Amino acid sequence: MNLKTNFTPGPSQLYFTVEDHVRTAFREGIPSISHRSKQYEAIYKKAVDGLRSLLGLPSNYHVLFTGSANEIWERIVQNLVEEKSLHFVNGSFSKRFFEIAQLLNKKPEKIEVAMGLGFDSSVVVPAGIELLGVTHNETSSGVSLPLEFIYNLRKQHPDTLIAVDAVSSLPFPDFDYTKVDSVFFSVQKGFGLPAGLGVWLINDRCIAKAEQLLSKGISIGSFHSIPSLYSHAIKNQNPETPNVLGIYLLAQVVDDMVRRGITAIRKETEYKAAILYQALESHGAIKPFVKDKTFRSQTVIVADCGEQTESITKLLQQNGMQPGDGYGSFKKTQLRFANFPTHSKEQYELLVDTLAASRG
Amino acid sequence: MNLKTNFTPGPSQLYFTVEDHVRTAFREGIPSISHRSKQYEAIYKKAVDGLRSLLGLPSNYHVLFTGSANEIWERIVQNLVEEKSLHFVNGSFSKRFFEIAQLLNKKPEKIEVAMGLGFDSSVVVPAGIELLGVTHNETSSGVSLPLEFIYNLRKQHPDTLIAVDAVSSLPFPDFDYTKVDSVFFSVQKGFGLPAGLGVWLINDRCIAKAEQLLSKGISIGSFHSIPSLYSHAIKNQNPETPNVLGIYLLAQVVDDMVRRGITAIRKETEYKAAILYQALESHGAIKPFVKDKTFRSQTVIVADCGEQTESITKLLQQNGMQPGDGYGSFKKTQLRFANFPTHSKEQYELLVDTLAASRG
Repeated sequence: MNLKTNFTPGPSQLYFTVEDHVRTAFREGIPSISHRSKQYEAIYKKAVDGLRSLLGLPSNYHVLFTGSANEIWERIVQNLVEEKSLHFVNGSFSKRFFEIAQLLNKKPEKIEVAMGLGFDSSVVVPAGIELLGVTHNETSSGVSLPLEFIYNLRKQHPDTLIAVDAVSSLPFPDFDYTKVDSVFFSVQKGFGLPAGLGVWLINDRCIAKAEQLLSKGISIGSFHSIPSLYSHAIKNQNPETPNVLGIYLLAQVVDDMVRRGITAIRKETEYKAAILYQALESHGAIKPFVKDKTFRSQTVIVADCGEQTESITKLLQQNGMQPGDGYGSFKKTQLRFANFPTHSKEQYELLVDTLAASRG
Repeated sequence: MNLKTNFTPGPSQLYFTVEDHVRTAFREGIPSISHRSKQYEAIYKKAVDGLRSLLGLPSNYHVLFTGSANEIWERIVQNLVEEKSLHFVNGSFSKRFFEIAQLLNKKPEKIEVAMGLGFDSSVVVPAGIELLGVTHNETSSGVSLPLEFIYNLRKQHPDTLIAVDAVSSLPFPDFDYTKVDSVFFSVQKGFGLPAGLGVWLINDRCIAKAEQLLSKGISIGSFHSIPSLYSHAIKNQNPETPNVLGIYLLAQVVDDMVRRGITAIRKETEYKAAILYQALESHGAIKPFVKDKTFRSQTVIVADCGEQTESITKLLQQNGMQPGDGYGSFKKTQLRFANFPTHSKEQYELLVDTLAASRG
């Protein structure tokens, strides 16, 4: 089988060290160790310590594991919202977060703009909102919200919890974690790992809120409620038998990224994004979908290809590259390109050169 | 690292073909394929078709995937119980199922006996129970409920849903699926796969019940509600980005088991259980924990080792075998032995011979 460079934004290409780590895992019997053993606790701790170091997490932050980011949407609503959350909706994933709050019989509100757009910093948050759901990087449209937009929400609403969906942006963004309360991602995007694991970062305010709901007699779920997850996390354990291999691989890849240096990873990401946006701007027939540069994602770059979508896809495939389809109704007119730490400068340069060659 | 034969009842030893399948998966790029691709749908279908064939599932049964069996406990309660479930509690896992119903603010009842015991067929189920939670194989104590006990519940209460926890018994038991409504397991036990995947079998009555709760305005969860899981399952998809590698490996191992033949697997399981129980009966210093032969599990065999627990553990380890610890308060006086399809006759014969050599 001829394996192409995979630019789909999730699951994306594996981080280049993953296969070696899998081999080591099997050699050491990791996939069948007990999740209550000291050996497992050491793996759990390595993953958590690595993430703390890579992302610069403050000590009042805790790292929890779930099965997916979908599950984290649900757990956030269950554990942190008694009645009202407000969601900034500008694409399919931010909308899904809002819908999950509806399905859990809460009374969520939303501020919605069209796909491809961001939000104005003058947005007005109504009274009585307990949690703001912010999608840092909308994977469906390639819109990323500036960090200052998020921090400004904190300044305006210091008592409201802020949960940030960073599924397709971390480890790129350099969040000031003191200005939000929860950040989450899944491992099959920027971390380049096999899917099947969600990572949920929460601060002490989230624990307090979950306990407050519980004390009111509100169900906050069972094995994956914040109190259950947290009481196991401080022992480097999970409530259930977890995806042990997934957590092992996360620990190893995060360690690789720490050694490579987060600053280098961020700089490379910016370089790759810059040359691709430049190529799209100067192409003529195709162009960036997101018009306002303030909102252009560095990690998921969406190209409006119109009638050339099919021919450009073929050209890229002929050159060993697999672009991601446009999302939903944009499937036949857009292409999406993940710009994750595993995508090398060389791969991006080949992508850009190939796009340039497609000019009329 | 010296890898021992792992008899702990979960995660247990990997099925002997798993490592080869992982190698193939990486060669074919499976860990990074899109979960919305035709290639993934084919993998999903292979896993489901294989399970239908291996277990003999009727056509009104559906196969759903979650992150763990813990999650299935929660989803069963959310989707199938408006108010009252009844749980047969005889150990830590059956108790946990009951507790999860409490945490979800339902009003569960329980019929409880001590660890090591089963239930009398004359048990009386109170009125108004919507779902019976039955743990076919209590992993903590090595008690297995006879299939006739379960079928008798159906005969007595034809309108009540029956959910069977077969986490540590499948694929061994030859269930008559027409006499229950839901059966579930996780892949790291009898199927010998890396942990991180729960498999939830439901029939059409479960779908109807979930829809009935939903029509009453009761929240049945979000992405992993039965309607959401089922509407994706019929397209060979999952609502979220799933554990693609886990589902691929399940498909492969189930295929291996189908080719080996479920009858052969069941006969071997019975043979291995018979020789181990025989060795425990005739040992003198150690004995089976479950006294009543009617309730002795064929797949998780628990030995009462008293003061010899440590010395027998050491002896087994010296001979390349790792027994499972006793559960909870029995940690220092019992040993547990998984008897899963991956454990060979030869491994069981060595286990039995080594135990015989430990006789005073």
